[in-house]
This record gives sequence, C-alpha cells and structure tokens, in this order.
Amino acid sequence: MKLIVVDNYEELSQLTAAALLGYMLNTQGRINVAVTGGNSPIRAYEILSDKIRGKDYLNNVHYYNFDELPYRTKDAEGITVSDLRRIFYEPAQIPESQIHKLDENNYTEFDAQIAKDGGLDLILMGIGADGHFCGNLPGTTEFKDFTSRVNTTPELKEMMKAHYDDPADVPDYYVTMGPASVMAAKNLLLIASGKGKADIINKFVHNNVSAEYPATLLKMHPNLTVIVDKDAAALLPGTN
Amino acid sequence: MKLIVVDNYEELSQLTAAALLGYMLNTQGRINVAVTGGNSPIRAYEILSDKIRGKDYLNNVHYYNFDELPYRTKDAEGITVSDLRRIFYEPAQIPESQIHKLDENNYTEFDAQIAKDGGLDLILMGIGADGHFCGNLPGTTEFKDFTSRVNTTPELKEMMKAHYDDPADVPDYYVTMGPASVMAAKNLLLIASGKGKADIINKFVHNNVSAEYPATLLKMHPNLTVIVDKDAAALLPGTN
Amino acid sequence: MKLIVVDNYEELSQLTAAALLGYMLNTQGRINVAVTGGNSPIRAYEILSDKIRGKDYLNNVHYYNFDELPYRTKDAEGITVSDLRRIFYEPAQIPESQIHKLDENNYTEFDAQIAKDGGLDLILMGIGADGHFCGNLPGTTEFKDFTSRVNTTPELKEMMKAHYDDPADVPDYYVTMGPASVMAAKNLLLIASGKGKADIINKFVHNNVSAEYPATLLKMHPNLTVIVDKDAAALLPGTN
Amino acid sequence: MKLIVVDNYEELSQLTAAALLGYMLNTQGRINVAVTGGNSPIRAYEILSDKIRGKDYLNNVHYYNFDELPYRTKDAEGITVSDLRRIFYEPAQIPESQIHKLDENNYTEFDAQIAKDGGLDLILMGIGADGHFCGNLPGTTEFKDFTSRVNTTPELKEMMKAHYDDPADVPDYYVTMGPASVMAAKNLLLIASGKGKADIINKFVHNNVSAEYPATLLKMHPNLTVIVDKDAAALLPGTN
Repeated sequence: MKLIVVDNYEELSQLTAAALLGYMLNTQGRINVAVTGGNSPIRAYEILSDKIRGKDYLNNVHYYNFDELPYRTKDAEGITVSDLRRIFYEPAQIPESQIHKLDENNYTEFDAQIAKDGGLDLILMGIGADGHFCGNLPGTTEFKDFTSRVNTTPELKEMMKAHYDDPADVPDYYVTMGPASVMAAKNLLLIASGKGKADIINKFVHNNVSAEYPATLLKMHPNLTVIVDKDAAALLPGTN
Repeated sequence: MKLIVVDNYEELSQLTAAALLGYMLNTQGRINVAVTGGNSPIRAYEILSDKIRGKDYLNNVHYYNFDELPYRTKDAEGITVSDLRRIFYEPAQIPESQIHKLDENNYTEFDAQIAKDGGLDLILMGIGADGHFCGNLPGTTEFKDFTSRVNTTPELKEMMKAHYDDPADVPDYYVTMGPASVMAAKNLLLIASGKGKADIINKFVHNNVSAEYPATLLKMHPNLTVIVDKDAAALLPGTN
Repeated sequence: MKLIVVDNYEELSQLTAAALLGYMLNTQGRINVAVTGGNSPIRAYEILSDKIRGKDYLNNVHYYNFDELPYRTKDAEGITVSDLRRIFYEPAQIPESQIHKLDENNYTEFDAQIAKDGGLDLILMGIGADGHFCGNLPGTTEFKDFTSRVNTTPELKEMMKAHYDDPADVPDYYVTMGPASVMAAKNLLLIASGKGKADIINKFVHNNVSAEYPATLLKMHPNLTVIVDKDAAALLPGTN
Repeated sequence: MKLIVVDNYEELSQLTAAALLGYMLNTQGRINVAVTGGNSPIRAYEILSDKIRGKDYLNNVHYYNFDELPYRTKDAEGITVSDLRRIFYEPAQIPESQIHKLDENNYTEFDAQIAKDGGLDLILMGIGADGHFCGNLPGTTEFKDFTSRVNTTPELKEMMKAHYDDPADVPDYYVTMGPASVMAAKNLLLIASGKGKADIINKFVHNNVSAEYPATLLKMHPNLTVIVDKDAAALLPGTN
C-alpha cells in the first residue's frame, strides 16, 4: 500500500486526476477503469474532464460503474450511472460505446463480461464513514462474494432514501461488485477527503482486516494507492 | 484465482516445477522467489533440481524462506532453511549468494530487505490441514501483520515438537512472513496433495475469508494459482 | 535478452515446453500465444501436448499462427496451420474455439483482431539460417511493417516448393505478421537447434540490427528469451 | 505505439507531467525514471516540480540521466546533469540520494547498475531534428550498442560548442545510453514540440527503421507513447 497524504481536497483532486490520466497515457491497448460516484471525486472529474474531453487518443479507455441503485418502479437508469453521467461521463463527453453499465439486469454476468473484456486495470473508489467500499456495506456482502444482489433491509432503505427524490422509488435490492471482484483488479486507487473520514481512515490504516469495516480488506491488495487529505488523515500519528 | 485439479501427486509436482521454471525462463532481470519446505513440494523440487542444477542462466533467481523455526539453544540454522537445503537448495546446487534467509535475527528488517530487492515475484506455498500458510496458524498472526515473531503457546510447542530431534530445542517463538507480506507478492502459487487436505481445500474454495482458516485470505490475491491433486480436491463438487 | 545455452535438442525442448506451460499456469485471464511451425518445436510440442491435452484449466489459452503459406488453387487450409494442426493442435487436442487462424483472407484485419483480443502475450519463434523470423525473409518485409502480404519472387517460389506436394500449388504470395506486429507482443521466445543454425546465431548475437538478417531486430525487445542448444551456439565465444 | 497529438506546447507539457506523475502514483516499490534535458521538457518539469516538491511519498522514485557531455578540462559536473539540476532536480528539490548520474567515469558499469537497481521503468526522451535520441546521433552508435563512449568528430565538436561557454571545454568524447539500453526499459515516452520537429516526426511515423534516423528504432518498443503538439505533427496526414 502506498499511502499519500496531501494538504487539501484540491491537491487530492489534482493527484487523483493525474493518477487516472497518467495510467491512460502510459498504457497500450484497451484500458478498463471502474469509477466511483459520490462527492469525493467530483473535483477530480472536473480536472480530468478538461483534459480528456474529445480526445480520440483515449478511445481505448472503457468505463464501468461498480454498483447500482435501481429505481423500484420508475423506468430509468439507476442512481449510480445517472450520477456518473452528471459528474463525469457528460462533462468529459465519454462516447456511449466506452460506457459499460452494471445494473440489476446484467449483474449475474458482470464478472464474466469484465473477464472477457480483459479484466479491470484500475478501480477508483471512495470509502464510507462506516467502512464500506462500492456497495459493500457492513453486514451486506461477504469478502468471498463476486458481483452480487444485496437485498435491502429496512435500515439500508432508510439510508438509501437520501439518494431518491421519491421514497417510493427506493428498491428492495441493489447490485454491487463484491469484495472478490474488486480484489481481482490489477490496481486499486482509494481516495478520502474531509474530517468526516478521519475516523475510518485511522481504522483503515491500523485495524485488522475485518467484516466490521469492509474496506480494511483492500489493504491486502498488492497494488493499492491511497490518497487522503490532511483532514481525513487527522487521526493518523505523525500527520499533524 | 486459477484452480487446477490434476490426477495425482506426480502431475502436481510436474506442473509445480513447470510453473516455477517457466517463470524463471520468461522473466528478465532479478527474480525473487519464496519457497516452502514441508512434504508437498518434495517431488517438484526433485524435478526442478534436475533442470536448474548448475545453470548459469538462472543466476538471476533469488530464493527466500518465508518462515523459520529456530532452535532454542543449539547454535544452528533453523528447521525451515535446513529443510530447504536438504530438499532443494543442495540438490539444485543453488549458490549461497542466491539464498536469502529469514531468521530470528533479521525478521524485523525482512520486509524492508525484500522491498529493496525489488519485491517478491512469486511465493510457492503449501496449506495446512488447519488452514495455515507459512507460519500463519489460526490464532497466531492477524491478516494485517507483516513479518512477525510468534510467541509459542504450549499447544504450538506441542505441535512443533515433531520438527525437533530434541524436545529441549523447541523455542519460545518462531518467525514468519505475515499475511500482509504474502499478499504483497506479485504472484502466489498454492499447492495441496492428498486426502488429508480434502477438507481444508473444500473450505478454502467455499468458505468466506476468515481468521479461522487463514489461507482463505489468499483467495483475494489478484494473481493466485492453486494446484491440487484429485485426493485434495475430493470434496469439491464436480471433481469426482 | 536472456540467452540460454543448453546441451542438446531434448533439453531445449524440455525448457521450451516449460516456458510455455509455466506462462499458462502463472497467468490469470485470457492468454494469447502465437506459435511456430517447422522442425525446431516438434519435440517441445510433444512434451507440451502430453501436459495440456484435455486440460480444462487451460481453456483460457488462445493460439495464433503468425504466417501462412496458402495454396494457389487447392481449396484447403494453408501450409502453416496444417503443419501446426499435425504437430501441435491435434496431438494436444486444442479446441477449435481456441485456434485463431491468420490466412490470406483476414491478414489485413489480423493486427486489429489481436489488439481486440488483448494483444499477444507470448510468441514462440524459430530463426532461419538466413536470419528470417515468421515470414520475414531478407528482402521481403520492412521492420516498420505490420501483418502483410508478401508477393513471391521466383527465388522465393523456388524455396517454397519444398512445402508443397504439387509445385502448381505454390502461390504468388504469402502472409505474415510483420516485424512491427511481432515487436508489439509482451514476450518473445526464440529457439534454435543444430549446427545449421550456428552461423546465424552467432550473427544474431554479435551483429548489428540490420535488414540483412531480419531476426537481429528481435534483440531490441525488452522481454526476449533465446534458447539454443550447444550445436546452434557453437560459434559463440565461451560456449565450447 | 500510442501517438498523441495535442494542440500546443502547454497541453503537451501538462500531459507529459501527468504521464510521469501518474506512473509514480500508481506504482508500488522503487521506480527508476531516466529523464531528458533540453528545451522540450522545460514546461513539463515546471508543472511536475510544483506537484512533487518535498513530497515524501515519492521518495521511491529514482532519476537517471541517459547521456552526458563532460568538460574537457574543467573539474565540474557535465552539461546534461547540470542542465537537469537547473530545470528539474533543483526546482523539484529531488534529494541527492534519488539522483543517479551517468558520467564519463561510470559509463562502462551503467547498464549493470541499472539492472541491479531493477531496470528502468520509464524513459522520457526528446527527438532531435536529425533523428537522434539520447546521445545516439546518426553515425555515432549502432542499434546493438549498450551504454557507450562516443568519440567526437570535428563535426560533432562543432555542434557541441553550443552547449559550452568556453570552446576549449568541448571534450573528445561523450557518453550515452545506447539504443539497446533504451529499448530494454519497460516504458518509453517520447515528446516533440514545434515546427522544427515537423519533418522528423513525419519521418519517425512513416519511414522504415533505419540508422539514418536513429529514433525510428523506438517505434519497435511494445510500450511507447509519443506526445507531439500540432506544430510538430504538421506534416502528418489528417492532423491539420
């Protein structure tokens, strides 16, 4: 694990964009990248979008979402892909042919499809204050699981409400790449920003690997880079 | 994980030798391999020794042991390296300059030394009937641990007696690369042979990752090959 | 370049088989290997066939031929694939779905197809006494060429006759992966056996890169392993 | 080869800095980078220096110069390292322990030292209007050469004068990584900017590999990325 502590969110975003762009520039042939929604990567995507928009020389880069919150009834793309379109795919003008969607209809074949595409080269992830990564929240998936359907408990539904305009749209399940799918990628990039992540980053670095904080598993990957800002690193010894 | 089930111990040994030799032949520059003692690899080492003995073109291959059982009082090399010398290093005539010993004196710097040497390219491991790998027995190390000293409980000492001619030589501790050290290697190769391994191989394949059977962690490595014979695979569905 | 000199053809064949098998065992995901016809690999294929025949765990390995001599009129598969079927694909019982043919109909799309398949991981090649590799004979292709059609001069046709039962079948052209296609592979493995190769191996090792002996270009690949027996190495200083 | 055409020198510099920084962020363990002096990379080094200055998390990155013009008599570091210090090492505050100098005293052991250090991961190079790369000018080294001493002809001395304040300091020889040393690196990054490079970039892309324009050899590397601005790409079909 390479742990990088930077001064602030802007520097974290610059480095994250450089890590993604650098990988794309240095690699020949098809590149498969799974990307995260949420707040952490928003500025990185802004920076990256300005550098990759309309660039034909990056048409070998393919993008995947690693989880999806579908709508219960509404006939629409799920929350994650909609989010990614808004904060990254549309501003960066990624051609539709380079966007590969995980959703409630294809999740059982998703790992096989990725293997057929050559495997994931890089996954960009955030980490939740509860230690989740992708849709692997404590108590949902097991470490051995590949891409899975997670049936939503009342507690999960309560949390998921924040993502839906209409509470009636909160579904009975969502889908996510499981821990085993994520660990099979060639490279992992984990980012965290802000004081709200200080406790989990401290646990991530120091705690043992455990299902209580699923992201602790990621420490076991041979090619993991972690970029955090000072606020997220506030509880690490020697950082402040 | 690539799971390979072969007919018998001889075929397992042939494939294991080919996996090691093939890696050595195909790779430019220094190659660092950690190798296991014990019974499982004996025949593979016989086959391999005949192919690499005295071959100058393999002088870029360096060998490491990943655990060591020292003697309590006797001034001698530990059990693991002694075993490796007998079953592999001596028959293969590996030059001393290519042998790198982990022992009770250098274990605190071992991970740093391996990093300085360029990291481990490949680790050949067995799996214990209790789910241990290297010296990571249930209840000894944690997944997050790097190379460590394990203080030996009375139960461990009882088990360790089998390795010592004189029970008085059983030490109060041994050293081992920890789970985090092993997972940092570029490639892992796990072998298991015989009916005595059938139960643990079934658990390894199907159980979740857990400290109860430490080797289950290895399933999370992106470059893991597992070679087992039919006896060791006897409880896997579809094998018999 | 890693240069390996072995005692004889049998040892060369054992190592060649181990290099191929080892690569297959150690690699996760799809593996694309281009293989050579001709006499040099015959024994290696015998050894390898016994180890891979009917092995489901190698169904991720895909095979390509890198040149093809078509028939002028006869409606049949070309000389190279026919040869490969006889000496390797059939004895090894490679499923048809894992065999990818280069021929006179698809050569213009062959490089693109290989790129789509993830690129070649490994090419096993021989070297001609005239310094040719694949179908890149002196005076035919240029180093910058990708997969190409070579129009056959009277001299080339005279040489090609040896491959055809009926001289009327010698065609006006053949197809071959060009030097640029070969150099784009991740790993190259070059083998040579016998006194008839001693002169070209000496030139290969010592001469500058030049179109006169096209194989000299291969020395520039960052992952090249060369295996030769003592007879082929007879003119290298320090070998005898 | 991945060929990237960008609008202008600023965009070229941004991408070059991102390619270097991205490689550093994504890679675990020691990273060895050979870097070029001259005008082309000046702005990229400015951008990069601001991002890497004082960053402890990049203390695993080691820098090498790939050629050196010594002084004939003056007891001072050569022209290339002095240039690199001014435009990159000093502004970026690279610790001296991460700077590895090729010079007239160590060139015979330089390839062996690099091999011992784990090989070069990445070389950043420019291309001369005459087709040279590193110190490999037409008529100096051969493609098969590793790191070499080049005796300077009167014509070379005349060209070299531009680099020296005092013409009496122009030496009788310089040293350079040879074509074979460069091709042995894992990744190559070639940059060119300005109308003065348009002719050689056109030749680089379209001509055959030849000693007349030594950089044409680089097209044969399996991991080559080329970044040029529109001016340097002016003669490439379809660019304007």
